[in-house]
Amino acid sequence: MATRAALAFLGALSVCSLQAQALMPWPASIQPQAGATAIDTSFSAAVSGAGAGDPRVTEAVRRTFARLARQTGLPLLPRNVAVERATLRIVVEQKDHRPPQRLGDDERYSLLVDGARIRLSADHPLGVLRGLETFLQLVGPSSTAAGFAVPNLEIRDEPRFPWRGLSLDVSRHFIPVDGILRTIDGMAAVKLNVLHWHLSDDQGFRVESKRYPRLQREGSDGQFYTQAEIREVISYAGQRGIRIVPEFDIPGHSTSWLAGYPELGSRPGPFQIVREYGDPFGAIDPTKESTYRFLDGFLGEMTKLFPDDYFHIGGDEVDPKQWNTQPHIREYMKLHRLANAAELQAYFNQRVQKMLTRYRKRMVGWDEILAPRLPKDVVIQSWRGQKSLAEAARKNYVGILSAGYYLDLMRPASEHYAADPLKGETADLSPAEQKRVLGGEAAMWEELATAENIDAKLWPRLAAIAERLWSPESVTDTAAMYQRLDQVNRWLEWLGLTQRSNLVLMRRRLAGSIAMPKLEAFASILEPVKGYERHRNHYGASSPFNHLVDAIPPESDAAREFRDAAERYLAAPGAPAAESLAKQLAAWERNAAEIQPLLESNPLLAENALLAAAVASLCKAGEEALSYREAAAPVDWKPRALATVMEANTHRANLLIAIAPAVQKLVEAAR
Amino acid sequence: MATRAALAFLGALSVCSLQAQALMPWPASIQPQAGATAIDTSFSAAVSGAGAGDPRVTEAVRRTFARLARQTGLPLLPRNVAVERATLRIVVEQKDHRPPQRLGDDERYSLLVDGARIRLSADHPLGVLRGLETFLQLVGPSSTAAGFAVPNLEIRDEPRFPWRGLSLDVSRHFIPVDGILRTIDGMAAVKLNVLHWHLSDDQGFRVESKRYPRLQREGSDGQFYTQAEIREVISYAGQRGIRIVPEFDIPGHSTSWLAGYPELGSRPGPFQIVREYGDPFGAIDPTKESTYRFLDGFLGEMTKLFPDDYFHIGGDEVDPKQWNTQPHIREYMKLHRLANAAELQAYFNQRVQKMLTRYRKRMVGWDEILAPRLPKDVVIQSWRGQKSLAEAARKNYVGILSAGYYLDLMRPASEHYAADPLKGETADLSPAEQKRVLGGEAAMWEELATAENIDAKLWPRLAAIAERLWSPESVTDTAAMYQRLDQVNRWLEWLGLTQRSNLVLMRRRLAGSIAMPKLEAFASILEPVKGYERHRNHYGASSPFNHLVDAIPPESDAAREFRDAAERYLAAPGAPAAESLAKQLAAWERNAAEIQPLLESNPLLAENALLAAAVASLCKAGEEALSYREAAAPVDWKPRALATVMEANTHRANLLIAIAPAVQKLVEAAR
Repeated sequence: MATRAALAFLGALSVCSLQAQALMPWPASIQPQAGATAIDTSFSAAVSGAGAGDPRVTEAVRRTFARLARQTGLPLLPRNVAVERATLRIVVEQKDHRPPQRLGDDERYSLLVDGARIRLSADHPLGVLRGLETFLQLVGPSSTAAGFAVPNLEIRDEPRFPWRGLSLDVSRHFIPVDGILRTIDGMAAVKLNVLHWHLSDDQGFRVESKRYPRLQREGSDGQFYTQAEIREVISYAGQRGIRIVPEFDIPGHSTSWLAGYPELGSRPGPFQIVREYGDPFGAIDPTKESTYRFLDGFLGEMTKLFPDDYFHIGGDEVDPKQWNTQPHIREYMKLHRLANAAELQAYFNQRVQKMLTRYRKRMVGWDEILAPRLPKDVVIQSWRGQKSLAEAARKNYVGILSAGYYLDLMRPASEHYAADPLKGETADLSPAEQKRVLGGEAAMWEELATAENIDAKLWPRLAAIAERLWSPESVTDTAAMYQRLDQVNRWLEWLGLTQRSNLVLMRRRLAGSIAMPKLEAFASILEPVKGYERHRNHYGASSPFNHLVDAIPPESDAAREFRDAAERYLAAPGAPAAESLAKQLAAWERNAAEIQPLLESNPLLAENALLAAAVASLCKAGEEALSYREAAAPVDWKPRALATVMEANTHRANLLIAIAPAVQKLVEAAR
Repeated sequence: MATRAALAFLGALSVCSLQAQALMPWPASIQPQAGATAIDTSFSAAVSGAGAGDPRVTEAVRRTFARLARQTGLPLLPRNVAVERATLRIVVEQKDHRPPQRLGDDERYSLLVDGARIRLSADHPLGVLRGLETFLQLVGPSSTAAGFAVPNLEIRDEPRFPWRGLSLDVSRHFIPVDGILRTIDGMAAVKLNVLHWHLSDDQGFRVESKRYPRLQREGSDGQFYTQAEIREVISYAGQRGIRIVPEFDIPGHSTSWLAGYPELGSRPGPFQIVREYGDPFGAIDPTKESTYRFLDGFLGEMTKLFPDDYFHIGGDEVDPKQWNTQPHIREYMKLHRLANAAELQAYFNQRVQKMLTRYRKRMVGWDEILAPRLPKDVVIQSWRGQKSLAEAARKNYVGILSAGYYLDLMRPASEHYAADPLKGETADLSPAEQKRVLGGEAAMWEELATAENIDAKLWPRLAAIAERLWSPESVTDTAAMYQRLDQVNRWLEWLGLTQRSNLVLMRRRLAGSIAMPKLEAFASILEPVKGYERHRNHYGASSPFNHLVDAIPPESDAAREFRDAAERYLAAPGAPAAESLAKQLAAWERNAAEIQPLLESNPLLAENALLAAAVASLCKAGEEALSYREAAAPVDWKPRALATVMEANTHRANLLIAIAPAVQKLVEAAR
């Protein structure tokens, strides 16, 4: 299977190299054919079949014209013609699929491009939506005068997992509606189908409640979505085949609830939303009946607002101290024979789950909620790894994986790409148990991200995760993934995503009188520090996220390419490769040396001046290592060079020099 | 005055060089002071004065926080505090100004920045809006750790002309609402105050009429604004101090009306909107009473929809043949003693003007409408030059200038900047007559522009015209204008304008496998052909505007800078200057030679391959010219070099090599 996919990929490349590269997620089956089908101003479409009247299809076809016009610059207005005359012929076989979309709705489609016509067929409207995205990704410059074309091919495609999501935190930093809509556009383009909207946390409550208006009034600093906006987002997502699963995180992560309703708190108020490092947290009191009356009213309102079958209650990271320090709660636990905070939370979850069942919702929660007596229809979302997912599946729960897909940790796309819901501890599950693994969700927590750079935190890495969750398990070639990801990254800009353009604006803001190419070259080999390292610095609502670390992508393409080139060189050393690497290092060294004094005199960038010095020294060490390929180095050289590398690895201003590991290898390999 | 402005400019530069450069239009009076006032996360605002409750002010202050946050990356939420504690203190003196905005509404403001506080005061809400734009332009990186600051200064500012507009054609190519709103944002930023919306022409009728729905149904190919959208645009513009003056061009330029209502036509129908070159035109029949009944109904509806006091009826370029060939019209003219088509049009205009007066509107028309017996309250818009503007003023009409401000002709900003409503024939007017010159309007006709590149056709050149119409007559330093224009061009991106980013996307679409830096370097010295030269090629609704000429700015900065450097060199020849010029030419030559074969094999760019060859030869001739500075050239060199220049001046694919004139000067000056 791996070989077949790889061959198909190479086959497509040979037919029409550029277009096929933008294809992500890679289809379940693809058969390239010779030639291509021209896309020109005569482009037209026709929809037929029993399901042709589905409004999602109608709107998707309309959008396809607009997007095709945007991608090509051709003047295309929606032209629906008779089937036999249409360039794009869409067949929707069945009519018994009606919105709202439900988990497991059929997303299969097939796409045939034969030189004259393009035929897209699907049983379900969702399949048409997915197939249209594939079609648009295939449109590229042609080798003929028509200008644009789709390579001839046959695709049969369907997802590996039915739940392919993004969990998006809008509490730590608020993302206005336009950012959510943009994100949905991007998600639809890579065939994700669930936006899990993390709507409340200690730092902010982001939804208008008409029943409990102090939630948003006291809990959001004015930054929340009105119910009309929520409905707009749900409708927008529904048109694009994406379910919206809301999350209101309880009973922990709930300080923002308590600002307006302190009586919900485990300890006496007043409470304020968490704005700065050190502000006290709160947790909901699970021992008062008034808490459940409030939650019942609240869930009654919100389960009406959000039509999806699933409803997420969070349930993660409850701080036991919030309860254990309160005499009335300890008393309650004793009375109800609840041994500890975990058992108290399980009791709370069960009561909430009963309400949700009454409101016809299935409850979703983070893996902490997995406890004895938890009803079997609850969905477990694992942020702690495949192990708890396997445990859930064995206990007959369905689950989704988020561990390995935390985009806020600034890890490379390749790492997320390697994380598989059915590898590791889940690999040993029986086929029936494996079926209970519904898929996965990327997660983006917003402590260190803002509306300004959210696109760059999500994209293009999210596309790689989308491929993991859609494409066959065998599609694992990381180099091919990166090659396509680079195309996808550019292609996504036609949708209006700002993952590249906004970072350029941010760097220009920083540059001041520094020439942009200098700053760009310097920034191109930097990466943000990884994991939770930056979180350790105190930050809060008044912290500006306008530093260089905020204005660069999580992953340096230049560093990755340099690493690959260095590895190729080390595997088969040769003079041309050495020269090419040395030339690249010399250019970075020169640039870093030139920019260092300029950084020093720029207040916004002065914190990066030391880093520039470290880059220059590091590059010099790398050049020296390459020069010691034939002549041996002086005895004291290597320890000094390794010290330079180590020094370069000491990050500054939350930045890493991303070429350092590759230079270290060059140094270690030098004679 | 010129000296004072220049001194003030230099003074500001010395205080806080970067920020002041983004200031456009230049204020009536500016007094720089030492030091600067920090802008940091503690930024707050307070509004006081009798007019403080004006919703335009409230909204503008709210937007100011959002825009400041965007410009700086600082986390700023609207914080209105007590006046004595506010960073930005706004005083609105009077409360007797109410929307809707009217021509001549007071726009004066003063801005005082004193190191601790910023005080903005104005009599009228409009003055606050203008002053806030100035404030935002002044915010830039600071030389202190605060990161951002406004230079200390005192500004007293007011416009030179009360009518400062943009005439925007949305008929030839439709611009969707988001493009209109973006344009309004940009206009407000440079203190323009009229959007003259050219809503109908032969190629499309762009407004929903509920009374005559076949206008949009048959006349727009589905591309029109609903009345709700029109109201949204009017409200959006009103909030930003911009009047919307609608234009429905009659009785010529009206083929799109006739598609749905052929009975309005001078000749028998049926009619279709003009889509392609050669499609027949039509004109409204001014001899039928039914025409006036229709127009009365239509104007009744539209004068309600558009609240501005002014209403534009076009009136330009009526083709006499449309009338003179029709026996019934000739008969009518004889009967009514109308000697020719011009007199018939004057008769038509008078009847339309009477209706508009009844609907409490003042009529505006292009200068063709100036005819005996035209009522004196009509506004004359001159597209033919200062002469007809002077004629109108002498005859007691008020007028506005558009000649010299046609952005579609792809002329440089400097040319528009030099056009002045009160220079040329209007310079001799008496002071009372000069008062009748209300101002001017840039005009952007859309035959060759689309929604994709409209921003680049407007910006940044429109900012230079805005300065001409706002700033004192004495502000004429072109070099200083270009220096600031470059800053404004970047600064406008914070508003979401796409004049740079969309062209990059368009060039990337063209590039295919050509490395972008190569294409960027090649494109950087090209310009679109000027005037109506490109219009001579047949084009129409199905013509793609996705060629290289569509993806570059109207004016090449690189070529302008090269020309300036060449002129400095020719005025004072020296070896370092010669070397620098030669080095630049060599880089362009090398790049052109490298890209030429790549262009040939790229179907979208193949038409530009010859041009690359011409660039290479041209650069070579320039380098030779510079090398003949000391040693004399061979006798046959100069004729050959000039032939090369002439060859380079022969444009291809609608493109000019913008460095050719400067190279020609170098060649001519060689020994």
